[in-house]
Amino acid sequence: MATRDVSGGACVVGIDFGTDSVRSVVANALTGELLGTAVRAYPRWADGLYCDPAENRFRQHPLDYLESMEGSLRAALAEAGPSAAAKVRGIAVDTTGSTPVLADRSGRPLALSAPFAENPNAMFVLWKDHTAVREAERLTELARRWGGVDYTKYVGGIYSSEWFWAKAMHLLGTDSAVAEAAATVLEHCDWIPAVLTGTSDLGRFKRSRCAAGHKALWHTEFGGYPSAAFLRLLEPKLVALRESLGTETFTSDTPFGALSPEWSARLGLPRDVAVAVGAFDAHMGAVGGGITPNTLLKVMGTSTCDIVIAPPDEAGERLIAGICGQVDGSVMAKMIGYEAGQSAFGDVYAWFKELLCWPLATVLPELPGFTEEMKRDLLTRAGDAIIPSLERGAAALPFEQSTVLALDWLNGRRTPNANQRLTGAITGLGLGTDAPRIYRGLVEATAFGSRAIVECFRDQAVRIDRAIAVGGVAKKSRFVMQTCADVMNLVIEVPAGEQTVALGAAMFAATAAGIHARVEDAQRAMSPGIEVVYRPDPERAYRYDHVYRDYQALGCFVENQTNGKVQS
Amino acid sequence: MATRDVSGGACVVGIDFGTDSVRSVVANALTGELLGTAVRAYPRWADGLYCDPAENRFRQHPLDYLESMEGSLRAALAEAGPSAAAKVRGIAVDTTGSTPVLADRSGRPLALSAPFAENPNAMFVLWKDHTAVREAERLTELARRWGGVDYTKYVGGIYSSEWFWAKAMHLLGTDSAVAEAAATVLEHCDWIPAVLTGTSDLGRFKRSRCAAGHKALWHTEFGGYPSAAFLRLLEPKLVALRESLGTETFTSDTPFGALSPEWSARLGLPRDVAVAVGAFDAHMGAVGGGITPNTLLKVMGTSTCDIVIAPPDEAGERLIAGICGQVDGSVMAKMIGYEAGQSAFGDVYAWFKELLCWPLATVLPELPGFTEEMKRDLLTRAGDAIIPSLERGAAALPFEQSTVLALDWLNGRRTPNANQRLTGAITGLGLGTDAPRIYRGLVEATAFGSRAIVECFRDQAVRIDRAIAVGGVAKKSRFVMQTCADVMNLVIEVPAGEQTVALGAAMFAATAAGIHARVEDAQRAMSPGIEVVYRPDPERAYRYDHVYRDYQALGCFVENQTNGKVQS
Repeated sequence: MATRDVSGGACVVGIDFGTDSVRSVVANALTGELLGTAVRAYPRWADGLYCDPAENRFRQHPLDYLESMEGSLRAALAEAGPSAAAKVRGIAVDTTGSTPVLADRSGRPLALSAPFAENPNAMFVLWKDHTAVREAERLTELARRWGGVDYTKYVGGIYSSEWFWAKAMHLLGTDSAVAEAAATVLEHCDWIPAVLTGTSDLGRFKRSRCAAGHKALWHTEFGGYPSAAFLRLLEPKLVALRESLGTETFTSDTPFGALSPEWSARLGLPRDVAVAVGAFDAHMGAVGGGITPNTLLKVMGTSTCDIVIAPPDEAGERLIAGICGQVDGSVMAKMIGYEAGQSAFGDVYAWFKELLCWPLATVLPELPGFTEEMKRDLLTRAGDAIIPSLERGAAALPFEQSTVLALDWLNGRRTPNANQRLTGAITGLGLGTDAPRIYRGLVEATAFGSRAIVECFRDQAVRIDRAIAVGGVAKKSRFVMQTCADVMNLVIEVPAGEQTVALGAAMFAATAAGIHARVEDAQRAMSPGIEVVYRPDPERAYRYDHVYRDYQALGCFVENQTNGKVQS
Repeated sequence: MATRDVSGGACVVGIDFGTDSVRSVVANALTGELLGTAVRAYPRWADGLYCDPAENRFRQHPLDYLESMEGSLRAALAEAGPSAAAKVRGIAVDTTGSTPVLADRSGRPLALSAPFAENPNAMFVLWKDHTAVREAERLTELARRWGGVDYTKYVGGIYSSEWFWAKAMHLLGTDSAVAEAAATVLEHCDWIPAVLTGTSDLGRFKRSRCAAGHKALWHTEFGGYPSAAFLRLLEPKLVALRESLGTETFTSDTPFGALSPEWSARLGLPRDVAVAVGAFDAHMGAVGGGITPNTLLKVMGTSTCDIVIAPPDEAGERLIAGICGQVDGSVMAKMIGYEAGQSAFGDVYAWFKELLCWPLATVLPELPGFTEEMKRDLLTRAGDAIIPSLERGAAALPFEQSTVLALDWLNGRRTPNANQRLTGAITGLGLGTDAPRIYRGLVEATAFGSRAIVECFRDQAVRIDRAIAVGGVAKKSRFVMQTCADVMNLVIEVPAGEQTVALGAAMFAATAAGIHARVEDAQRAMSPGIEVVYRPDPERAYRYDHVYRDYQALGCFVENQTNGKVQS
């Protein structure tokens, strides 16, 4: 790809669709400087529409995406000013995933047509929707007895209820009206570029390599998606949907197309803006965070998404056992993108906070003598103060003074070797074990979980030299981050800035627009640099080597007990 | 022993010395009816004098005992009225133990003479004082390499820092002035009868079988206490003290002597009142609670003391491994009294309450906008409400709905097979595990700990047919008691009344006074009957059989890990 002349300067736009809101940034394509930023929440989602948390049903209306995207784009461009807007050359989009929707012949989500406007089965099925548990199990079972090729080999051997085919099966199997109307199934990150480019010919949709490879079992080895014969056994209607997908997928350094005249006019942008192929948030975020080969990039929030990239072996793509998936080009072209993760990270601390809030939430309302307002106020303020107070207490504990050893599997274990039945534990409790000691044990447990992922890669000859951490926990807790550095015995860098993921999208926008030849070049030019570096303390690292062995022994015991119970 | 003529009615007095206070009761010796009850706290102890909790040093001044005993006796007798007082025929005393003191040639605790009045080493060393840890270890080591006889064989193989000889060694070794002045060492339960009978000739002291057997290594097999040669190696000054003890010990159905004229006059009691040989609170309490052969009597408080009595085998006294001790006659004459216990029971729940109170105690004081008084009030009231609220929540949980499995060793494990290094654990945690679920797991864990003691006895052919529960937990928590019944698959009876221990002492008083021929007869006549019966639910009992196996597996894992770490 030839680089474009940008002697007069150039800007790009990154659009990052999260679980609750969408964030747009306008960035200088040569320096990465952020010129405008705006966030808009999804209005229907904020009102709890179309969801049933008790059933783990989480749906999002396509209008939520369109309205909030336009709002955030307008605001970000307004902040950047008209001269910046005039220099915009590229746009790229990342979304959560797998978040698919059933769509008609022109690629319009069914909920955008009147008969389905209020039907949750015609809307996007959010990544965390778990209504397709049975369908996922059926797919996994079929894959195991399917002769010849194991379609789940690149996604860790177990197909998840959170993924593309299971969700499509579930919608088709439970709602005959939408099944009748559906001509294709689209990931959220495939639909937005189609909208922005005005593409309505399914044959011209450029499906995301990242989404298709990690969630839809696409692989060059299979010649694309699983065979029609395979999918027919699961749900005959999948066969036609499969046809609509084609066999090709695209990396996000490629343009999906040009911004449509309609959107150019609405946003006040030039006519020749390139719109990149979409991808998932963690993968574009990994680029925004500065991922390079042999670096563990951890997106640390309620759970973690861990990404490593490495060039394929000379012999081709080597299977790494026990991780979530591996896709050539899912992060950067010509690199295998490996994905791993911890099912609960910040959620472990949030669980403990919730536990400690129990008397405030349950006992307090029963006590007479305080007004309702005082009780609410107390619960909020004490709740906010708990984690910072626990951090101070835990950080002040002498290293050797706690016997607490915990296991971080409170939401099961995603990597290594996914097992959702596993549970968490807290051991080494004495009558003097107080809340900060338990909190420290929980932090260490999540750090041990991170280390287990590093060791899983290393055991299979994937080199890891350092870590980069992005996401809320990386920014918020020095105690957690230093513990992770000590436990993993790895330098951990935290990049500057609060817009890592959207900035990653902007880097893809700059590449798809031809401003930079490769994503690596865009990354080098536009990275905000490192803000904090956590270096392992050698003595603590040495001691944690021993405690990690105890953690492994505890994990082994819990896993054996759990598996024993499943068998009996 | 011939029974005495009591056609005009007879009364007895039971005096129960606890950790913080002494309780006296006046009872009808024929029916057990309580005519007067009074409690008096130890004044110096209440002020925290002579103690250093950080060093686990807990000492009690003999004047605390004398003043509060006289106060509680006067008040109880006043409540019973002069006609009851005129009918008093016997007095018996129980105390905590092992709570020894160094005393002079006439059996007076050293702190009662001016030079030692403020010296903690001249006072009683309370049962929970742990200043003699090293001395206990030395005794255990010597016992292991001592040829011929193992003096620890009847007390579980490990001599405790809470016991008689270790405490005497510690005082003699650290304070040469008291060592110089000491002519004997007395248990609290041996001293009070001497006071009441005005006995000042050490040769006429009747040492308690219960105290000597359980804490001072007295056994008929040894011809009394450990040999002078053995004790000399530990501390030469012990040899003379050993001489002062004699070789005989006495069960508490025996009179120590007659109430002294001085005390008769001070209390307004008849001249011919028998004062029984003393014993420990749990043992007299076991009689008061209605213990019979093949019944597990559990004294359930912060920890538990578990007592079983059984007639000796035809072949003699059989050793039961893994329990705390066994003494012929420590509870009733001609019965072996077996003692076991759980190091933490109510303390496990108290620990969890404390944990949940952490935000109230730590975060609340930092919040502005509430007065100090409001914060204190909130902490107190919320603290009081937590356990009842947890009980309601836990009781409402469907049986199968929790995956929590806990281990109750938060204060180590006393029985079976004492190991103070062991720690507690909570496993099976998920993000949805809330406080009532953990509380239920902790209650089940303490019940599993109770079951492990029952199985330890049964495995060694000591039959256990039912349980009787006394103490605070037995009275307060229906949820805990029903869980214990289900887990142990045993009927548990809770006797009526709040004065079980003092009433037990009254039963011994009535026997020593000759009103009843045997303690069993006194017990039958004076028992207040059963107030509540907890019957195991057959389905839950069946299910808990399986969970108990998981508890054992978890315990086994923790024990192996702990022992492995000690060795490495």
